[in-house]
Amino acid sequence: MIEKILQLELGERSYPIHIGPDLISQSALYAPAIRGRQVMVISNDTVAPLYMDSVCTALQDYRLEQLILPDGEQYKTLDVLTRIFDALLEKRFNRSCCLVALGGGVVGDMVGFAAASYQRGVDFIQIPTTLLAQVDSSVGGKTGVNHPLGKNMIGAFHQPRLVVADTNTLNTLDDRQLSAGMAEVIKYGLIEDREFFDWLEVKLPQLLERDTDALVYAIERSCRCKAEIVAADERESGKRALLNLGHTFGHAIETGMGYGNWLHGEAVATGMAMAADLSARHGWISTADVTRIRALLIKARLPTDPPDEINRERFMELMAVDKKALDDGLRLILLDAIGAAKITADYNAERLAETLDQNLPLTGS
Amino acid sequence: MIEKILQLELGERSYPIHIGPDLISQSALYAPAIRGRQVMVISNDTVAPLYMDSVCTALQDYRLEQLILPDGEQYKTLDVLTRIFDALLEKRFNRSCCLVALGGGVVGDMVGFAAASYQRGVDFIQIPTTLLAQVDSSVGGKTGVNHPLGKNMIGAFHQPRLVVADTNTLNTLDDRQLSAGMAEVIKYGLIEDREFFDWLEVKLPQLLERDTDALVYAIERSCRCKAEIVAADERESGKRALLNLGHTFGHAIETGMGYGNWLHGEAVATGMAMAADLSARHGWISTADVTRIRALLIKARLPTDPPDEINRERFMELMAVDKKALDDGLRLILLDAIGAAKITADYNAERLAETLDQNLPLTGS
Repeated sequence: MIEKILQLELGERSYPIHIGPDLISQSALYAPAIRGRQVMVISNDTVAPLYMDSVCTALQDYRLEQLILPDGEQYKTLDVLTRIFDALLEKRFNRSCCLVALGGGVVGDMVGFAAASYQRGVDFIQIPTTLLAQVDSSVGGKTGVNHPLGKNMIGAFHQPRLVVADTNTLNTLDDRQLSAGMAEVIKYGLIEDREFFDWLEVKLPQLLERDTDALVYAIERSCRCKAEIVAADERESGKRALLNLGHTFGHAIETGMGYGNWLHGEAVATGMAMAADLSARHGWISTADVTRIRALLIKARLPTDPPDEINRERFMELMAVDKKALDDGLRLILLDAIGAAKITADYNAERLAETLDQNLPLTGS
Repeated sequence: MIEKILQLELGERSYPIHIGPDLISQSALYAPAIRGRQVMVISNDTVAPLYMDSVCTALQDYRLEQLILPDGEQYKTLDVLTRIFDALLEKRFNRSCCLVALGGGVVGDMVGFAAASYQRGVDFIQIPTTLLAQVDSSVGGKTGVNHPLGKNMIGAFHQPRLVVADTNTLNTLDDRQLSAGMAEVIKYGLIEDREFFDWLEVKLPQLLERDTDALVYAIERSCRCKAEIVAADERESGKRALLNLGHTFGHAIETGMGYGNWLHGEAVATGMAMAADLSARHGWISTADVTRIRALLIKARLPTDPPDEINRERFMELMAVDKKALDDGLRLILLDAIGAAKITADYNAERLAETLDQNLPLTGS
C-alpha cells in the first residue's frame, strides 16, 4: 500500500497526516487520536452521502453522533457554526469529546473553529475530501468563518489531533474542484520548490487523471512544504505570509464576486498570475517565467485573468480590507524566481496600477 | 498613591495588573500595552456614561473608536458578539489593533473572546469596573459567551496585555454588585488562604464601606491567589479547577433561574455554602466551620440557600451539563478545611442528595 505518514512537529500539539488510498475506513488510524468516548462526525450534504457510513463504521466503538451542514462557502458563517454548538450541547458533549471534520475546506475550517471554541477548546480530527483541503487546510491549524465584510475574519489557531487524507475521496471530486486544489499545489512550487514546479510541468496530466501514485506524491510534497513554513512561524507573524502568494489578489476577487461564485483555488490561480505579472514589471522575474507560470495554470484548467465585473478602484478597495493590510502599508507576496517568493511592501505603486490595468477595466462594470 | 502592580508571569503572554485609585485616566499606563494605532473601547450602556470619557481622553493619541453594548448577562451571546465583529470590520480594524474592555465580567468575557477570534487573535486590555471582574475575570485569560443550554460554553483562552483595576470605579457600583464580588474574594480565602479568610472576618465592614486601602489589599491578594493557581495550570486540566469552588452548584442555580436573575457571585456564595455543607456531611470540616463560612457570607449580604424554584431532580440535571461533568463522573470542589479545597469525585452520592434535600424541595416548583 502506498501510504505516507507525515508527522507535524509542533511540540505538544504535534500530529500525523496520513496520505494514501483506502484510509477512511481504518479504525486503527483513529484510535490513538481520540481521548474520550464522545465523537461527533460533522460533514456536508454533498460529502455525507458518499463517505459518512464508512467513517461511522470505523468509529462504531464510540458514542457517535452525526451532523450534516449545507454545502458551500456561503454557509461558512457564524450562524451555521452555531448549529454545531447547538448539537454539541443538545447531545451533552463534554470537554473530552472529539469532533471529526469530514469534507472540504469549509467543513474543516468551521469544525476546527467549533473545536477551538467549544468549552474553550476540544479535540478534532480532519478528514479532508478535496485536494485543496488535503494540501492546504490540513496543515497549519487555521480555522474560522467568514463575515459579510471579509473572508476568514473570525477564527482561531487550533491544531487537529490527526489528518486523514484519503486519495480515494478525490475520485468523486468534480474536475473544477480538482483544478482548484491544483492551484495550491502549484503555489508550493512557486513559493520555494522549483524542482517540484518542474515535476508538476511533467506530471500534471497524471494528476488530472487522478493517478494515485502521483497524487500521494504531490499531496505529501505540498504538505511538507507548508509544514516547514508553518513550523518556522506557527502564528503567522513572518515567513508564513509566503503561503498567501496570490491570496491578496485572490481574496479581492472572491469577495468582489460574492463568496462561492469563484472557487478559492481559481481566485488564487488568477492572483498568482497577477503576482507573477507584477514581479516581472519590476524585473524580478522574466516574462518567460510569467509565460511558464500562466501555461502551467492554464494546463491545470485554471483561470489566469480576473473577472471583468470588478473595476480597478473596487479591486484596490477590496485588497485593502484584506488581513495583510498592516499599518505600514499593504504588503504583497511577489516572486524573485520560480521557487523563491518574498514578502514585500517595496513595490512600485505605478507598476501595481499597470498590473491591475492590464487585467481590469478602468471603470465600473 | 496606594497603587499596587502585580505581574502575571505567563511567558510571552505575561502582563501587569495595576490596582489602585485614579488609574483609568492615566495615559502612560496604556502606552506600553498598545502595539498599533487602532483602538476600540467597548463598554455597556451602564458603565459608558460614567467612565468612557476618561478612558477616551487617556487614549486620545490613537485612532479611537467606541462601541456600547447593552448591559446584562442576558446579552453575553453570540449575537451580541457579532456586533463587535461588525464594528471592527466596518472600521477596518487590522491585526495590530487593540480592544479595550471597559465594564464588568460580561464585557470583559465578550471583548476578550472577540479579541481572541478577530482575525484569529488581536490584543486587548481589561478595565474591570466591578469587584467581581477585578478579582476574577482579570486573571486567567478565560473569555467567552453563554449558550441557551449552558454558561460560558463557547470561548477561548486569551490573555490581556494589561489589566487596569481602578478602585474608584467601585464607588459607583451598587451594593448588590459589590457583595456579589465579595463572594469571589471570600472564595480565595476558602480555597487556599486561611489567613486571608481570617482577615476578611475582621475587615469586611471596611470593604463594604469601600475603604480604598482595604479594597486594594483584598483585590491584590485575591488576584495573587488566582494568579498562583492559574500559573500552575494555564489551561485548566488540574489544580485550576479549585477556582470552581461553589461554581457547579452555582451554575445550576444561575441556569435554572435564567441568566441575570441571580448574580454570578450570589449563586457562587450559595454554591460555597452547599459545598461546605456537603464537606461537613463527610466529616472533612466541622459544623462550626460551616457556621463560620455561612456567617461571613451573610455578613457580606450574600444568599446561602438555593432558590425554592429549582427542585432536586432539575438541580442534578443542571449540574451534569456543567463543564466539570467529565467522563469519569461529576467531580466537585469540596473542603478539607477553611483554606484547603480539593477536587474530588470521591464523595458519597447519598450525602450529596442530603445536601440537596436540606436545601431544595423534593418536587417541582
